[in-house]
Amino acid sequence: MMSKEDIANWFRGLQDRICRGLEELDGTGQFHEDLWQRPAGGGGRSRVIEGSVIEKGGVNYSAVHGPMPERIQKALGLPPSDFFATGVSIVLHPKSPMVPIIHMNVRYFETQSRSGTESTWWFGGGIDLTPHYIVVEDARRFHQRLKAVCDKHHPAWYPRFKKWADDYFFLKHRNETRGVGGIFFDRMNESEGKSKSEIFDFAKDVGEAFVPAWSEQVNAGLQRPFGPRELEWQALRRSRYAEFNLLWDKGTRFGLDTGGRTESILMSMPPMAKWRYNYSPEAGSQEAETLAMLRKGVEWL
Amino acid sequence: MMSKEDIANWFRGLQDRICRGLEELDGTGQFHEDLWQRPAGGGGRSRVIEGSVIEKGGVNYSAVHGPMPERIQKALGLPPSDFFATGVSIVLHPKSPMVPIIHMNVRYFETQSRSGTESTWWFGGGIDLTPHYIVVEDARRFHQRLKAVCDKHHPAWYPRFKKWADDYFFLKHRNETRGVGGIFFDRMNESEGKSKSEIFDFAKDVGEAFVPAWSEQVNAGLQRPFGPRELEWQALRRSRYAEFNLLWDKGTRFGLDTGGRTESILMSMPPMAKWRYNYSPEAGSQEAETLAMLRKGVEWL
Repeated sequence: MMSKEDIANWFRGLQDRICRGLEELDGTGQFHEDLWQRPAGGGGRSRVIEGSVIEKGGVNYSAVHGPMPERIQKALGLPPSDFFATGVSIVLHPKSPMVPIIHMNVRYFETQSRSGTESTWWFGGGIDLTPHYIVVEDARRFHQRLKAVCDKHHPAWYPRFKKWADDYFFLKHRNETRGVGGIFFDRMNESEGKSKSEIFDFAKDVGEAFVPAWSEQVNAGLQRPFGPRELEWQALRRSRYAEFNLLWDKGTRFGLDTGGRTESILMSMPPMAKWRYNYSPEAGSQEAETLAMLRKGVEWL
Repeated sequence: MMSKEDIANWFRGLQDRICRGLEELDGTGQFHEDLWQRPAGGGGRSRVIEGSVIEKGGVNYSAVHGPMPERIQKALGLPPSDFFATGVSIVLHPKSPMVPIIHMNVRYFETQSRSGTESTWWFGGGIDLTPHYIVVEDARRFHQRLKAVCDKHHPAWYPRFKKWADDYFFLKHRNETRGVGGIFFDRMNESEGKSKSEIFDFAKDVGEAFVPAWSEQVNAGLQRPFGPRELEWQALRRSRYAEFNLLWDKGTRFGLDTGGRTESILMSMPPMAKWRYNYSPEAGSQEAETLAMLRKGVEWL
């Protein structure tokens, strides 16, 4: 029987493999690690990199537990409970504006009521890509990979999780998607008609898809020249990324609300961002073309 | 009898006076105006400036009305109602890191139940100062001015509203105040033992105190030299400002939730901000001294 420790251990190993893969990809950058403990229970390993390809990146592993904050418990409709949560969470901000920002998260969550009679568990996660400049062919490749991962487990999952990503990675106040999306899934458990280990296998495949999927994007993006104009646009797009994370991202909220380590949670923030009042790119420009594609429901395949 | 139109008109005039005062102070910058309408009712005048002293500043006036969003109505414990809200809201990000960021807001809010039987009204507002480098003497001057404004109306208001500002302009996830505080007040109505026009007079005095209070800070700050080190610190402090506005500021949330104009609401964002993972200034440095003073309950007077 698979224990929560088995799941946490697997995620910890995933963090190791991803960090090795990213160091190889970057060429010069090396991860620095901070171990931390959560006062109310558990802890984690935060790893950050500043390299040649990755300007600022974080790969975080954590396994935390303790009493469930009342507000969250009520939101989930649960009795007074303890929770256990483990996962790996990544955001990478590349130096080149021609390389997309990428985010990945895989996580496992379980709760146990204080009375001991009620318990719940689920897996969640997602990968999504945020190009500063959308290249349709690259977006298609990215979605093809995610579709292959999903199809291996269930034919209905890619379209379902693709739509979920469109809805989740969405800046309501801008009426813009964060990027070209990807997949997002949450509260996946036996109600899917799959066993726990089958769902875990899916989460594993999502995690292992991360390095190859982003490597392909990096290799394509690094071929493209850029100058001050593209860097300026990158800085403006990064402020949208900051807005999403601070205004809408539920993981950020959950982390800050449950007394998580602020620096680990906000590793996702860009190294630098600019805000210009009411800025709108010139009609017909590459920047305007990208903006026009930041819409829900685009069929990238 | 003072109507909501009278109040809105006075706020609109305040915006004009403040913009004139800030153009004079800046020397070269001029405000550009956008008029906007809110689809669900009302509209506003957003004014932005990029000048010699002010790198990015916004002075916004609005008067909006319509059905109260259900979520807010429930949070306020009201029956199905319509609302009317008007006010002036300002954030100024100076070029020099030796000049503080300033924020001011004065607002009037009223609700009327659909059945016509229940109505409420209140004034709210605040001014707070966010120096990149705290100069105790300047913080004292700022608080002295606010105390004088409060004392004119009620001897208990300065200590009460000073504490309220400490509690409101607070980054829970950092355990830091946003700056040296100021005053904050909300839901001020007849329950204060004052008439509507008396409370309005107080809001007026807060609004009129803005230009002289910040001018004094600017004149002091512009005497102090700075270089790359101070600019770097300013960029890091600006990211804290962005975090506060997007994570904690209720006005930002209310505006975005009620379908306000995003660019007007996010005028408060800094022109540029930097995030560095787990950055901590050298012990004993000016930067560390400022950080150490970002605490609730400091008696600046």
